[in-house]
Amino acid sequence: MPPNLFAELPASLQEEQFIELFARPEAGLKIERIVSRGQASPPGFWYDEPHGEWVIVLAGAARFRFEDESVARTLQPGDFLDIAARRRHRVEWTHPTEATVWLAVHYGLAARDG
Amino acid sequence: MPPNLFAELPASLQEEQFIELFARPEAGLKIERIVSRGQASPPGFWYDEPHGEWVIVLAGAARFRFEDESVARTLQPGDFLDIAARRRHRVEWTHPTEATVWLAVHYGLAARDG
Repeated sequence: MPPNLFAELPASLQEEQFIELFARPEAGLKIERIVSRGQASPPGFWYDEPHGEWVIVLAGAARFRFEDESVARTLQPGDFLDIAARRRHRVEWTHPTEATVWLAVHYGLAARDG
Repeated sequence: MPPNLFAELPASLQEEQFIELFARPEAGLKIERIVSRGQASPPGFWYDEPHGEWVIVLAGAARFRFEDESVARTLQPGDFLDIAARRRHRVEWTHPTEATVWLAVHYGLAARDG
């Protein structure tokens, strides 16, 4: 059986779960699954990454905020967006009772970001 | 509203549909949506690509074959696999009545492959 994105979803989570699905460091690429169960970024915290990240929500729901936008975006299954390097962002909310499953494609990674 | 992978799925298709969702040529990256409705690779045809491609099926169903494997793999929603550069492969079958939706992450692209 091939590996499956929706396999072994944790029934409960203390923190967001990150699983690397695929990596090609020489191509600057890493693909990971992120699972949230109600987790959000800490108050006032902004991610600020040195590389780009294309993300798609494939189960659950989330509210995602760019610092340079005044309103959060609501993400449903199938919704995707690109997070350019150094564009500050945070997750304001994820569904409290369903698993929210993200697929994240990190690109332009330098070896040190791996 | 953010763009959605499952939006505007064609009700019928003469050929597989390829839509570019995201590209960063300088990072050698292209992400596309592929929709099939019963399409398969022509008999005897093998894809043989100069770059790598990580794919995941997110709706429908497919049978996927590597030339160096004796048996086709059945892919259901959530199933993913990596197709290394120059590893010959074909799609033997896709679901005849449902849309099969693939997300394909092309990596290690040279400008000429774009």
